[in-house]
Amino acid sequence: MKIVVQKYGGTSVGSIDRIKNVANRIIKKKEEGYHIIVVVSAMGKNTDRLLDMAYEISKNPPKREVDMLISTGEQVSISLLSMTLNALGCDAISLTGPQVNIKTVGNHMKSKISDIDDTILRHHLKDNKVIIVAGFQGVNEHRDITTLGRGGSDTSAVAIASKLQCPCEIYTDVDGIYSTDPRLYSKAKKLDRISYEEMLEMASLGSGVMHGRAIELGQKYGIPIYVASSLEEKPGTIIKEVAQMMESTAITGMAIDNNDAIITLDYVPYSIQVISDIFSRLAKKDVNIDMISQTSPRDNSVSVSFTVPKIELKEAKEVLSYFESKYPEIRVNTKEDITKLSVVGIGMRSQSGVAAQIFALLAKENIEIDMVTTSEIKISYVINPENQQTAIKVIAEEFGL
Amino acid sequence: MKIVVQKYGGTSVGSIDRIKNVANRIIKKKEEGYHIIVVVSAMGKNTDRLLDMAYEISKNPPKREVDMLISTGEQVSISLLSMTLNALGCDAISLTGPQVNIKTVGNHMKSKISDIDDTILRHHLKDNKVIIVAGFQGVNEHRDITTLGRGGSDTSAVAIASKLQCPCEIYTDVDGIYSTDPRLYSKAKKLDRISYEEMLEMASLGSGVMHGRAIELGQKYGIPIYVASSLEEKPGTIIKEVAQMMESTAITGMAIDNNDAIITLDYVPYSIQVISDIFSRLAKKDVNIDMISQTSPRDNSVSVSFTVPKIELKEAKEVLSYFESKYPEIRVNTKEDITKLSVVGIGMRSQSGVAAQIFALLAKENIEIDMVTTSEIKISYVINPENQQTAIKVIAEEFGL
Repeated sequence: MKIVVQKYGGTSVGSIDRIKNVANRIIKKKEEGYHIIVVVSAMGKNTDRLLDMAYEISKNPPKREVDMLISTGEQVSISLLSMTLNALGCDAISLTGPQVNIKTVGNHMKSKISDIDDTILRHHLKDNKVIIVAGFQGVNEHRDITTLGRGGSDTSAVAIASKLQCPCEIYTDVDGIYSTDPRLYSKAKKLDRISYEEMLEMASLGSGVMHGRAIELGQKYGIPIYVASSLEEKPGTIIKEVAQMMESTAITGMAIDNNDAIITLDYVPYSIQVISDIFSRLAKKDVNIDMISQTSPRDNSVSVSFTVPKIELKEAKEVLSYFESKYPEIRVNTKEDITKLSVVGIGMRSQSGVAAQIFALLAKENIEIDMVTTSEIKISYVINPENQQTAIKVIAEEFGL
Repeated sequence: MKIVVQKYGGTSVGSIDRIKNVANRIIKKKEEGYHIIVVVSAMGKNTDRLLDMAYEISKNPPKREVDMLISTGEQVSISLLSMTLNALGCDAISLTGPQVNIKTVGNHMKSKISDIDDTILRHHLKDNKVIIVAGFQGVNEHRDITTLGRGGSDTSAVAIASKLQCPCEIYTDVDGIYSTDPRLYSKAKKLDRISYEEMLEMASLGSGVMHGRAIELGQKYGIPIYVASSLEEKPGTIIKEVAQMMESTAITGMAIDNNDAIITLDYVPYSIQVISDIFSRLAKKDVNIDMISQTSPRDNSVSVSFTVPKIELKEAKEVLSYFESKYPEIRVNTKEDITKLSVVGIGMRSQSGVAAQIFALLAKENIEIDMVTTSEIKISYVINPENQQTAIKVIAEEFGL
C-alpha cells in the first residue's frame, strides 16, 4: 500500500475556495495511486481569534481550557475539508487528534506526542478513504484534549508518517527552502534537498518554514519531508538524511536575522560564579540568549557579549541592573541595530577554512564584525545592518547560493 | 450530596459579558451548598454561522461531518465559561459530550441519548468542581461525535439530571411558562407550575420555551424541571408530575398559532382507500398535518379539512393536484389567514364541558369556528385572525389564565 501524509497549513485552508484547491490537490494525488492521510491546521487567523476571547476573560486562563478552546479551530477545518472532498465524489472522513488517539505527555499548550495508535488510521486506509486528521492536537492520560504548541501541525504530520513509515509532504505558503531569504537576495536559489541537520540550524535561525520539532522527528525516524507550495505547481525541497546525498557543498544556506540586539558587559569580575549567575538569572526571566562570546581576562576582568531578541531587551536590562549595583565596575552597553548573518552547511565538517574565507570576503568590503560564534555546521556573524546587503551578495556569489 | 443540573442557552452565553453573568449565577448557587453541573449551548448564532459554511460547500454535506463541525460551537462556550469561573476563583472543568461519554444511537444530526456514563461526572463532583458539559452533543458506537438535533441541549441537561437523579434548571431568555403568549394577551399569568403532559402539549403547539424531548425525558425519570430567566432574578415555572400538585384547574394554558393554513377537500369519494392515499402521499412529501376533521358522508362523498404549515402549502398543493386530476369531482379550497387557538389542561379529564363552555363564549361574541379537534387534555379551534384578540380575552378571563 502506497501511503503518504500531506499537511496543509492555516493559509492553505483559509477560505472555502482555498479548501477546494486543497481538495483538488488531494484528489490528484489519490489518482496517482496513493492512500492519503491529510493533516490540517486551523483556518487562517482562527486560532488567534479564539485566543483573543480567552485573554479577554483572563490574563492567565487555565491552559487545559485554552486547549479545549483552540482545538476547535482544527476541528472546523477538518470537517469542511472532508465535506469538500465528499462533495467532489472522493470518500473522506475527518478525525480529531483524540479520535486518532494521538497520545501526548507534558503540559497543556506545549504537549509532546508520546505515541500514535495506528489502528484507526489503518482501518480507514483499508476502506480506501482519505483521512483528514486535525493537526496540533492530541489527548493525554486524563482524556483531556491537548495542543502541541508552535509548529504543532507539522509535528502531527511527521509523527503520523513516522508511525506509518511513509513519506510526509508539507504544503505551505512558501514554495520550498531557499539558500537564503529571497526577499533579501533576489538571486537566492531554491534547494532541491537539504539534510535534517542543516534544516534544523536553518529553523533555529528563524527561516520560519518549519518548526525544529518536526524536523527532529523526521530525522529520528528517517522520514523524508517534502516542503512545497500549496498554491503553485512548482517543485519544492526535500529534507532527508545526508547519507542519501551524493555530494555536499561547503555552505547550503544563509540566514539573516534582524530581530536581535547585542549586549556587551565590560569589566565583569573574572569569576565563573559571576558569569554563571548572570546567565542563570537571565534564563529565569525567560530571556533567550543566542550567541555568546567572552574575551580573555585582562586585569582580572573580562568582557562578555551576547545577543537577545529585541522584545526581551527590557527584561534583560532589569536583570543586568542588579549586577550593575552589585558590581559597580561593570559597564553595560546595548546595540539594537544589528544584523545576524549565519551560514549553514554540513560540508563545513569536511571543508576547513570556511570561516577564514568569509572573514576575507568581509575584509575586502571593509565590513566590520561585532561578534562571531561557530558550531560544527554553522558560523554566525554580527554586522552592521548597513552592510547587510553587500555581505549577502558577496557570500552568496562566493558559495553559489 | 446536593446536586443540581443547570442549563444555559445560546442567548445566555452570547457574549463574554453574558458568560460572566452566568458564572456569577453559578457561584451564587454553589454558595448555597450545591454541587453543580452546567450544560451550555453554543454562543448566540455560532451554530448558524458554522452551518452556513457547510451549506456553502454542499447542499447535502455528510451529516457525520456536519456534526464534527457544529459540535465545536458548544466546545467554545464550555471552555470560555470554565475560564470565567476559574478567573473568579471558582474551580471548574469543561467536558465535551464524548468526554462525559454521553452515548447516542441513531442518525447524525438527530441522535438520541441511549445512556450516560456517570463515572467521570461523579469523579469531578467529589473534587467539588463545577462541571461544564457541552450540550447538544454525544458520541456513538464508532466514537464519532454526534448531535441531538433541535432542543438538544435541554435534552442533554435533563438526561444528566435523570442519570444523577437530581433536579434540572433550564435558564433561558424567557422568565417562565405563561398561561398564554404575553405578547398577545398582556394580562397573561406566569404559571408557578405545570405538569409534564400539559407542557408537552404546549411544546407541540409551539410555545417555544422547551423542546418536547426534554420534557418527555423528565417525565420518564420523574425529574422536576425549573424554567426561568438567565438575566433576571424572578421566580420561574416548575414542570413536574401532576400527582404532586394539590389542585388542578380546567385549563392551564392557551397557545396561539398563526403559522398554519387550512385546506378543505370537498366531494372526496367516500372511500378509506382514497383518504388514506391522500395523507400517505402528503406524508411522503414531508408535509406536516396537524388538525384533521372529516364530515359524515353525503351522496357518497365526504369533506376533509386539515391544517398544514403555510411554508409547506406549495408541496401540499402539488400532491393534491394529482388527486384533482384523478378524481375531477374533488374541489380543493385553501385558506391561509387563520388563527389556531388551543387550550390545554389536565383538569379537562375530570371536568367535562370545557369544549361546550368555550363554544358558548365564542358564540356570545359571534366568533365563527372553522374547525375543531379535541384530545384528552387539549382542544384546538380554528378561527378568523380578526377575532383572535377577542377570543383570547374572553377565554383568559373565563378560565383565569
